[in-house]
Amino acid sequence: MSNTFGDRFRLTTYGESHGLAVGGIIDGCPSKLALNMEAIRADLARRRNGAARQEEDAIEWLSGIKDGITIGTPIAFCIRNKNIRSEDYDALVDAFRPGYADYSYQQKYGIRDHRGGGRASARETVARVVAGAIAKQVIAPVEIHAEVSELGPEAENDTRGGIVSCRITGLPVGVGAPVFGKLNAQLAQAMMTIPSAIGFEMGCGFEAARMKGSEYIDRWNNCLNASMPDCLSKDAPNQTIKQSNNQAITKTNHCGGIQGGISNGMPVEFRVAFHPVVTLPQPVECLTESGELRTLIIGGRHDRSHVLRTPVIVEAMTALCLINNLL
Amino acid sequence: MSNTFGDRFRLTTYGESHGLAVGGIIDGCPSKLALNMEAIRADLARRRNGAARQEEDAIEWLSGIKDGITIGTPIAFCIRNKNIRSEDYDALVDAFRPGYADYSYQQKYGIRDHRGGGRASARETVARVVAGAIAKQVIAPVEIHAEVSELGPEAENDTRGGIVSCRITGLPVGVGAPVFGKLNAQLAQAMMTIPSAIGFEMGCGFEAARMKGSEYIDRWNNCLNASMPDCLSKDAPNQTIKQSNNQAITKTNHCGGIQGGISNGMPVEFRVAFHPVVTLPQPVECLTESGELRTLIIGGRHDRSHVLRTPVIVEAMTALCLINNLL
Amino acid sequence: MSNTFGDRFRLTTYGESHGLAVGGIIDGCPSKLALNMEAIRADLARRRNGAARQEEDAIEWLSGIKDGITIGTPIAFCIRNKNIRSEDYDALVDAFRPGYADYSYQQKYGIRDHRGGGRASARETVARVVAGAIAKQVIAPVEIHAEVSELGPEAENDTRGGIVSCRITGLPVGVGAPVFGKLNAQLAQAMMTIPSAIGFEMGCGFEAARMKGSEYIDRWNNCLNASMPDCLSKDAPNQTIKQSNNQAITKTNHCGGIQGGISNGMPVEFRVAFHPVVTLPQPVECLTESGELRTLIIGGRHDRSHVLRTPVIVEAMTALCLINNLL
Amino acid sequence: MSNTFGDRFRLTTYGESHGLAVGGIIDGCPSKLALNMEAIRADLARRRNGAARQEEDAIEWLSGIKDGITIGTPIAFCIRNKNIRSEDYDALVDAFRPGYADYSYQQKYGIRDHRGGGRASARETVARVVAGAIAKQVIAPVEIHAEVSELGPEAENDTRGGIVSCRITGLPVGVGAPVFGKLNAQLAQAMMTIPSAIGFEMGCGFEAARMKGSEYIDRWNNCLNASMPDCLSKDAPNQTIKQSNNQAITKTNHCGGIQGGISNGMPVEFRVAFHPVVTLPQPVECLTESGELRTLIIGGRHDRSHVLRTPVIVEAMTALCLINNLL
Repeated sequence: MSNTFGDRFRLTTYGESHGLAVGGIIDGCPSKLALNMEAIRADLARRRNGAARQEEDAIEWLSGIKDGITIGTPIAFCIRNKNIRSEDYDALVDAFRPGYADYSYQQKYGIRDHRGGGRASARETVARVVAGAIAKQVIAPVEIHAEVSELGPEAENDTRGGIVSCRITGLPVGVGAPVFGKLNAQLAQAMMTIPSAIGFEMGCGFEAARMKGSEYIDRWNNCLNASMPDCLSKDAPNQTIKQSNNQAITKTNHCGGIQGGISNGMPVEFRVAFHPVVTLPQPVECLTESGELRTLIIGGRHDRSHVLRTPVIVEAMTALCLINNLL
Repeated sequence: MSNTFGDRFRLTTYGESHGLAVGGIIDGCPSKLALNMEAIRADLARRRNGAARQEEDAIEWLSGIKDGITIGTPIAFCIRNKNIRSEDYDALVDAFRPGYADYSYQQKYGIRDHRGGGRASARETVARVVAGAIAKQVIAPVEIHAEVSELGPEAENDTRGGIVSCRITGLPVGVGAPVFGKLNAQLAQAMMTIPSAIGFEMGCGFEAARMKGSEYIDRWNNCLNASMPDCLSKDAPNQTIKQSNNQAITKTNHCGGIQGGISNGMPVEFRVAFHPVVTLPQPVECLTESGELRTLIIGGRHDRSHVLRTPVIVEAMTALCLINNLL
Repeated sequence: MSNTFGDRFRLTTYGESHGLAVGGIIDGCPSKLALNMEAIRADLARRRNGAARQEEDAIEWLSGIKDGITIGTPIAFCIRNKNIRSEDYDALVDAFRPGYADYSYQQKYGIRDHRGGGRASARETVARVVAGAIAKQVIAPVEIHAEVSELGPEAENDTRGGIVSCRITGLPVGVGAPVFGKLNAQLAQAMMTIPSAIGFEMGCGFEAARMKGSEYIDRWNNCLNASMPDCLSKDAPNQTIKQSNNQAITKTNHCGGIQGGISNGMPVEFRVAFHPVVTLPQPVECLTESGELRTLIIGGRHDRSHVLRTPVIVEAMTALCLINNLL
Repeated sequence: MSNTFGDRFRLTTYGESHGLAVGGIIDGCPSKLALNMEAIRADLARRRNGAARQEEDAIEWLSGIKDGITIGTPIAFCIRNKNIRSEDYDALVDAFRPGYADYSYQQKYGIRDHRGGGRASARETVARVVAGAIAKQVIAPVEIHAEVSELGPEAENDTRGGIVSCRITGLPVGVGAPVFGKLNAQLAQAMMTIPSAIGFEMGCGFEAARMKGSEYIDRWNNCLNASMPDCLSKDAPNQTIKQSNNQAITKTNHCGGIQGGISNGMPVEFRVAFHPVVTLPQPVECLTESGELRTLIIGGRHDRSHVLRTPVIVEAMTALCLINNLL
């Protein structure tokens, strides 16, 4: 079902933007983990950063934790929606905003919660950030760092998209699986589930299509000059190859650290493109249920540069992806 | 597990490049389908097009079909590897080619079939093309068309990548699911499982990150001027909206036909970037199991412009993706 | 993961007996269903019937429902544990009760919530009953009826088990699947997940092993004498065969209504054996973490005839099983 | 889908009784396992034991094995159906045998392979026995032993059922999972997928429903008198507790070695009831597609005491169940 991510560390989320709460259940978190609550709050703060709608995002832990320690049972959590102004959306009861999921949801389900985008709102990513923050703690010392590497044009009365770059370090060689379970394919899926994601590329990505093979290919470093046990551990499959910068196993990393769907010990690097927020701070024509166009100024509070809030979501989905390969 | 794709129409594949055979099992194909064997053969021929290694690709159907009709039980099929020249790979017994999955497989499994790339070879896509060709027959009249839209630079003694564009027409509105089951996320995963795929984008993709919101947004057509029942069927969720070209529900299709992870009735459009084949027709340095570099001329038969053979694989994976949403 | 049941109508549950709450998320409930809340409350009351610990079982609906109507998004619900007397369990901090899951949980997770059995408590079945009550509403007019057909011996200062019989009527022919997806196998799994279930049998079950083939076999009725469209619908696979009692398709129902794992249109009938509650109203020897035996009178409130409360749980699990085959 | 069992060691099977072949794909078998082919052949011989239809059951290994060693890729195998006498079934083209799956398959799929029961034939268990024999090798030193413990009445011109008992020794404590993933529930499902299985019980099973709690409860042994490290390993969750017979952790094993769905270190014990083969060596009335009864002597070759051939299938399904918990 579409509201569950992962199989071993399985996150199931729930909640509409203007419903009572958003939250989730994590099934498969290892027991005896002392949760770093401060780290979870810090990631939630990164997600809120600059948001038009300000929520406290206080987490109520309903199960799975005793005295701050995980006990191996499902971790259920709940975050109340408090700062709701549903009346902002009254004009949308029978009108579909352009660019949003209003229309496709209505067609699929025959009913929808029109307030704040309902389930399609990026509000649901709160649950992902909570679960991702826990996953990061489990998979340490693997580190994930995402940041905005390109921001779309600033424009008066307009919105902007951008590109987020992500880099995973400390990942063991041998993570991922052949054919349909390729780690790059898992990451692509994970990233494209983020609201407004519209493109994904590993390593040098689309640019690779324009390179000659002899330019693209990542050549081996001479490992004899490096410390061999760190460079090549033929007797210990699945073990981390620890490499200092000048001991990297390949001279370049055009492939983004994954070969044949399986990590090769280099940093895993990818980029995610986000289109601009589709609610413009201008009057727009909405399609009504009766099929006519109606010009509206969309209410609600919407970010103009939401991309600034997405790196922590990219990190969360990366962490959820990795933990399901590492447990 | 990584060798299975889909849940309702489930393909499980097997086979190494130089093993006895490649093939698969399809579980969930509807019964009473009269298979168009000619269409399957035609897709296999598109995949073989220009290949350095020529295989007959004769399919042996082991189960699930009686008198040419599917009976609802698993369809197992087998394609023998006949044109094998394993001796070409003798020098690779203890050496990892650059750019290939030799090294990451060895690290993951502690053992590998070095002949022709083993399981990591694109030879395994034969099974995908067979299953995709069957899936296309089931989901008709939905149509999938992929083609090379950009080819990397031609260069002497070198290889080239390229970009494949794919367009789905006739897809009903309402296909896909919210949050983690977004159709675009499913397609991204499916495409990135194809050997040498390195990037994926919906609609205008990475370019969208550089557009203003007011440029990007897909504006509604005035459906009152179109034939209404075709344009908006509020009483019949999940039904196709049939639209002639001048009745398209939006004026542009920058989003690629999917909103909130759910198809909106417009053509679904995406692009896949492929890096150049990594076996160069030049001497390259391989990494040996003992950690030294050894210059080799890689044997085996390898395509220089494999991208020309990928559209049918893109179509197959698209069909497998769609059928799992449509059944 | 072990806290999720089903794939199309997917219930994930959470909660420990003496934690903050128990509850779950239902993913895949059809949209536009007007929930009959009274029916849900009535099933919860059946589950509470005669329980030593009395809980109000008030349900807080966190998502997925708007104005009493399902909207197709995940239905999250939460039931607070209010009537908790955790001090009853203080003596069990370092002692494992005989017959309970205290020891196996401790060994598996290295930590446990000793209060009231934690996650292993039958308290978690509250979430199943809620989801089952919703599933019943979706699959109507299929009807499920379970009742205690045999009760173990009554004994002073002791507990008793028993056998619950369940009968499904109105189920279409063709439900279930071959080989590993047999409906009887699905039911067996579903029933054996109920706390204290220890046996399962279809139709005449273990007795069938002692019958001759000629006694066991269910012989066909002469359908020519019955109303044919009801009896045999060769042109409409998957459709219900509606049969009055004298039009039953077989003369007996020793197999319990399932052949080759697929329903045959007869009532589906099975029985579940429950062992006695393992907390005796007598002093028992517990095993301490240091490996010695300690005689304790187990605190907490425990039923002596819990079997009387299980039919509604059997019905719930049956409904969850069926809905995943019928959607 | 119904033709796949397991998630980590995943078996997908195919094949009809009178089709070209039966077989399967195993995905997830560990690499570097030297297969004991003789043990596989021995289990196949146990399955053939006394069968009316004699097949050679020669296995063709299509992938996943190199020089007799598994390489971590899918293991595909194929067993040709050679001893076919399909003409025996000509009279069944339009007639449904009583007790068999002919009718329910026809209703579900609208088409069927009437020859020898098609997919519903126990012929498909060949693939289970092959995979089970491999699984046994992986999970050693866990041992599984099944045997016929009760055989139905012998009768002239008739068939008989029986009961198979199975015992698992050497299983670590902590195997299985709470709530819906209980090991007993997994075993129940696995057993009920075997053709003609009609009942399942753990430990003392249905008899437990008739015991008093004080009789049923498995009391702890005094571990202080036993060698403690063997009896209780609180610091090493998930580790085997090795116990000689006089160090068993409980004095009785009424529960069958599983508490709260998780193994407790005692032998796991269960029983499976099989109904008699439903093809009688007597004339029987079949139901024709036009709804009339037609008396036929069922052709084909059928066992009268098939229960004698089932222990190895019970062992195979047990092994498949366990390996998915142990990997």
